[in-house]
Amino acid sequence: MQTAALQTPALLVDADALEHNLATMAAALPGDRLRPHVKAHKCTALACLQAEAGHNGFTCATVREVEGMAAAHLGHDLLLANEALDTHRLGILLRTGRATRITVAVDSEETIAAAAEGGIDEVLIDVNVGLPRCGVDPSDAGRLADTARGRGLQVRGVMGYEGQATVIADRDERAAAVDQAMALLQKAHQDVGGEVLSAGATVTYDLNTVATEIQAGSYALMDTTFQPLVPEFRVALRLLTTVISVSSRWAVCDGGLKALGMDHGNPTIEGADVLFVSDEHTTFIPRDRRVKVGDRIQLLPAHVDPTVAYHAHVHLVRADDVLETWPVDLRGW
Amino acid sequence: MQTAALQTPALLVDADALEHNLATMAAALPGDRLRPHVKAHKCTALACLQAEAGHNGFTCATVREVEGMAAAHLGHDLLLANEALDTHRLGILLRTGRATRITVAVDSEETIAAAAEGGIDEVLIDVNVGLPRCGVDPSDAGRLADTARGRGLQVRGVMGYEGQATVIADRDERAAAVDQAMALLQKAHQDVGGEVLSAGATVTYDLNTVATEIQAGSYALMDTTFQPLVPEFRVALRLLTTVISVSSRWAVCDGGLKALGMDHGNPTIEGADVLFVSDEHTTFIPRDRRVKVGDRIQLLPAHVDPTVAYHAHVHLVRADDVLETWPVDLRGW
Repeated sequence: MQTAALQTPALLVDADALEHNLATMAAALPGDRLRPHVKAHKCTALACLQAEAGHNGFTCATVREVEGMAAAHLGHDLLLANEALDTHRLGILLRTGRATRITVAVDSEETIAAAAEGGIDEVLIDVNVGLPRCGVDPSDAGRLADTARGRGLQVRGVMGYEGQATVIADRDERAAAVDQAMALLQKAHQDVGGEVLSAGATVTYDLNTVATEIQAGSYALMDTTFQPLVPEFRVALRLLTTVISVSSRWAVCDGGLKALGMDHGNPTIEGADVLFVSDEHTTFIPRDRRVKVGDRIQLLPAHVDPTVAYHAHVHLVRADDVLETWPVDLRGW
Repeated sequence: MQTAALQTPALLVDADALEHNLATMAAALPGDRLRPHVKAHKCTALACLQAEAGHNGFTCATVREVEGMAAAHLGHDLLLANEALDTHRLGILLRTGRATRITVAVDSEETIAAAAEGGIDEVLIDVNVGLPRCGVDPSDAGRLADTARGRGLQVRGVMGYEGQATVIADRDERAAAVDQAMALLQKAHQDVGGEVLSAGATVTYDLNTVATEIQAGSYALMDTTFQPLVPEFRVALRLLTTVISVSSRWAVCDGGLKALGMDHGNPTIEGADVLFVSDEHTTFIPRDRRVKVGDRIQLLPAHVDPTVAYHAHVHLVRADDVLETWPVDLRGW
């Protein structure tokens, strides 16, 4: 099948770029040094390639992602790197043997109780290392670990997401922010114990030398926001669209707000300036060529994760050939 | 079933607000004066209520929406208010009797050819009335109508979307922008002929007195961006979330970028300030009450359309009762 036969808008994954990204990351962080985050692609077919690249454990953001990974026989060592209260859904996976190992992040008495009562055996203490989001204060991590152990839970260690560092463009400043965050995580780890210090993201993957495992997700598909910070990875994700209207000053293609995560801003079109995006349209001004109705135009999304979440499928392509069509099977909650 | 039993995040539709909105609009624009736009809710169950309110024709933004409306036996008079090239999919609906009447917007020789060759019988000439998007220049509308008739198509009239007026908060200025746009549409209509002048949006529904039918969509569910412009409608859409983490300074709930269209900015939480939204989280600062882990928090989306498009279902609720669960069955393309 050729891309010309695809209905648009359609989400494409460039096979060459994907393979390059997977190989580059596996060389830098082989095996269990990387715990790929599936929230970025929500696609077990892609997770299978990450497993083939040598990464045995995976990171999930939702209970649904854990369930889907287990259903796809990728439940060897799953980390739900997020607080959850409906942990009974995860306990079922363990009891029925659909998943071998599920570890859940906890940052409160309530989430510890939910883990214990839901049938979870293992947890990480989620430590706040600077991003105003989840995680216990570092000074409270040891106490929380004791509480978890008191509830019969194994405490594998700590996790802490240095999200505040991921938005810093300058590499040295980003490295400094990572170091500062990881000093907090190390301090908490001394009080908590266990073997695991789980942290990181694609844009800190080689700067974070403290974490025992890096939770990188975006590196596989990569977007225009993060790629300039880690240029060794390539933008593999594109939204294929069709030009449906052309005026003397602009052109309009058929991909818009319902096909693109917009929190990082407009998509990019090579050789064109994007004017604005509406529900089912992107209006753009071509710079160096004539565009006509029926032309296919590729948009590069500004943010991978909420873009993929809009789509039921992604198509793996090499040049104009559609190699495979993958369900985005980890969507929903 | 009670809302407390719903997994979160879950999209809720407040039945009282919805009924109020449908009744308010049906009183202002009864019957065929309104052609409800289904792109806002992508839900045939909700479209059925709009049909029961007296509106026989519907507006669609995608071929998929037309197909889904036809499958739900709502294909009495469907307008695809958008340019499309894969019109053969619509021709099939007509030939097999699944839809009675399908009218397609055209703004070029190519889209006219696609309509004729795809088996479409009726078109509207889409006229650009000021928004840099689709639509032919008003001065060219008559020529295009002749071209369409030359291809054997019935030209029912014109349509023109005054999108530039929908972002103007001041009512008088908005009215002036609508008038200016509709003057262009009337001029084009003189050259085109036909009975239909289709235009409008929720925030211009009572200002646009030129159009024979108004394509309003947002009014049914309503969001925090448009509601202040038309306060006679109520915000009916809410994202139900669960608080999963609480610190001394902020709290975090489990709805984020993959559950909320973000192009109009952050969601609103009554009694709280939203700090930021990430993939599966919203961090907020409660103003006037203590929040604890497990509490349910409702987020009011800033933009209905791309929010609904993230969800497989919406739940119709009255207070804490879940009355019905509707599939968002018009998603995709």
